[in-house]
Amino acid sequence: MKCNTDRRISFCSDNCRCAQCVNQDTLQRNFDTFAIPKDVSPTEISPKSDGVDILWSDSHKSYYPWSWLNFTVQDTSNKKPTIQEKLWGATVSSAPPEVEFNNVLNSTSPKGMAELTGKIRQYGFCFVTNSPKTPEDTEKLLETIGPIRNTHYGGFYDFIPDLALADTAYTNLALPAHTDTTYFTEPAGLQAFHLLSHTPPTNKPADEVLGGQSLLVDGFHAAETLRKESPGDFEILRKVKLPWHASGNQGVAIAPDMAYPVIEATGEKLHRIRWNNDDRGVVPVDIDVDAWYQAARKWDEILKRKESEYWFQLEPGRVLIFDNWRVLHGRSAFEGLRRICGAYISRDDFISRWKMTNFPREEVIASNMQLR
Amino acid sequence: MKCNTDRRISFCSDNCRCAQCVNQDTLQRNFDTFAIPKDVSPTEISPKSDGVDILWSDSHKSYYPWSWLNFTVQDTSNKKPTIQEKLWGATVSSAPPEVEFNNVLNSTSPKGMAELTGKIRQYGFCFVTNSPKTPEDTEKLLETIGPIRNTHYGGFYDFIPDLALADTAYTNLALPAHTDTTYFTEPAGLQAFHLLSHTPPTNKPADEVLGGQSLLVDGFHAAETLRKESPGDFEILRKVKLPWHASGNQGVAIAPDMAYPVIEATGEKLHRIRWNNDDRGVVPVDIDVDAWYQAARKWDEILKRKESEYWFQLEPGRVLIFDNWRVLHGRSAFEGLRRICGAYISRDDFISRWKMTNFPREEVIASNMQLR
Repeated sequence: MKCNTDRRISFCSDNCRCAQCVNQDTLQRNFDTFAIPKDVSPTEISPKSDGVDILWSDSHKSYYPWSWLNFTVQDTSNKKPTIQEKLWGATVSSAPPEVEFNNVLNSTSPKGMAELTGKIRQYGFCFVTNSPKTPEDTEKLLETIGPIRNTHYGGFYDFIPDLALADTAYTNLALPAHTDTTYFTEPAGLQAFHLLSHTPPTNKPADEVLGGQSLLVDGFHAAETLRKESPGDFEILRKVKLPWHASGNQGVAIAPDMAYPVIEATGEKLHRIRWNNDDRGVVPVDIDVDAWYQAARKWDEILKRKESEYWFQLEPGRVLIFDNWRVLHGRSAFEGLRRICGAYISRDDFISRWKMTNFPREEVIASNMQLR
Repeated sequence: MKCNTDRRISFCSDNCRCAQCVNQDTLQRNFDTFAIPKDVSPTEISPKSDGVDILWSDSHKSYYPWSWLNFTVQDTSNKKPTIQEKLWGATVSSAPPEVEFNNVLNSTSPKGMAELTGKIRQYGFCFVTNSPKTPEDTEKLLETIGPIRNTHYGGFYDFIPDLALADTAYTNLALPAHTDTTYFTEPAGLQAFHLLSHTPPTNKPADEVLGGQSLLVDGFHAAETLRKESPGDFEILRKVKLPWHASGNQGVAIAPDMAYPVIEATGEKLHRIRWNNDDRGVVPVDIDVDAWYQAARKWDEILKRKESEYWFQLEPGRVLIFDNWRVLHGRSAFEGLRRICGAYISRDDFISRWKMTNFPREEVIASNMQLR
């Protein structure tokens, strides 16, 4: 940065870090950037041990800590709150990520929450073990991560499948691996399921196998497999933007603000998976339709490989929380009555909680202000 | 579409509209696209008066209504739920859009809701007049449009400014025109304010001018003005992606999933405005920083022109609802105590309500399934 030349003057005056310019509570700008005279110039530049003072021609005195200038101007890659994602397949079943309920909720230390959110960031999911088997405690746990997201289905849910409801999620049918709310501009960030009870039908013995196994598939793992085995198909699913819809509820017909691809990625970095073939709209006819179907067929085949699928049984006291931008979920068909509670949490709130429990506050905020 | 050639077979079999293939409640696919044999082919094509039957080599019989084929394959521009936006400046004050509370809420007809949502789509805002002066009725009104969005500030709000809270919105200071929640991946869609009361300070007479005028600015109008007067600056604000942040609350540091530009637009079509200079992050140093500041200075100047600004006084019984993706809001400083209630509603839910009250359901869903 050349603050002592004519160029970049606006940048320097806009980013003054003095206590007068930055609201010390909200860390928002406390002045009108555009009220600064266009011809303002530095009249005195005074380097100090911890930063630099600049006296401007309008007599305002700015302060910039060296740490802030370094972070802003240099490569910031080492200082960003970041995590190494662990991609997984079926073998994750031998040691799935889990944390103790009491460490997350009944602790004065943020370590349990740091561990929970950190594991969800690493694996895309985590179990919360030894949870009280009540909807109230489950709701409290989830609200501690972030505000529960309200949709046309409601907020926190606590339901027993009712075949009269117009969504397959509320049936006892098998559901192939999918992400939820593909039809929202911003799909649900986190999703949680807590099985509170599963009782057999009246005509069956209590020890009968009732089905209802849960399925998770790491969408980032599947996408990387696709990229490796068939880079052309990966590019098609990344580039072709599709319509998605929710049309099953009276008076409601939801679609995103625009079409979105199955795989969102920037360069090497995977960002979001959006996949529910049942509520996918019509493949646009002005693209190579055959090529899209071929790519989707390959994607579907990878998702359904035995080595991609992690099957397990939900249990009371063991809350499942997963990242709906990365991990697909499904289940096998079942008999009897299952009572399941859970909720959606917006991704921004989850990421905020993860950052604030795992990294120093100043580092998080400095990084947020530099987000690319 | 040439369903009777070898090409596009996947498309046709994937989009069968027969009652067996499409769940008649949810309108979701009722079959596994990728379980259809790759080598399936049509063996019999039978045009009828209302559509076409195709008998496939795996003995499934598909049906496609002509209307569906026409909509899917032809230019659909005439059939999309659409509205002519009315861009406005200060003169909108002579006849601001409004609807009667009773027509929206206490009516068996959807006409009032159609009018309310239609006017918000056209103007970016609408008043609901003769509303009961209670938070309960305001909440009910808003929930009828769509589910209230929950954030780290809570859901439905009902507050009296308290200088102890760490956000300028909760003070009595002047606020320049801005959009809310620039720091969310998906900023709030609709926003509502209902002034329930404004009482003077104890040391002032009851008829004192207390300030607190409200300000709206049509961001789409300002963007079109910028595009016309300075296309280069428009392009800079459209292309340069910036960081945004909310850092004022203990334990919370929110940022969007990636950087976003001030103006989001595809070709001629404006999509979303994101502008709050106070919670804007640092302009990325790897772009032409000076050019960005010059463009932002021009944008700021347009927003602050007298002919851009619509000033008015909020009143009990007159609920303001506006599109936070288009319209900027602000207020002048005030004395005394103001009690204001309101909420955010997600844009997808609002758009769904608008479409479903203004257009036939089949048209809405067909269009959602074709969204580009």
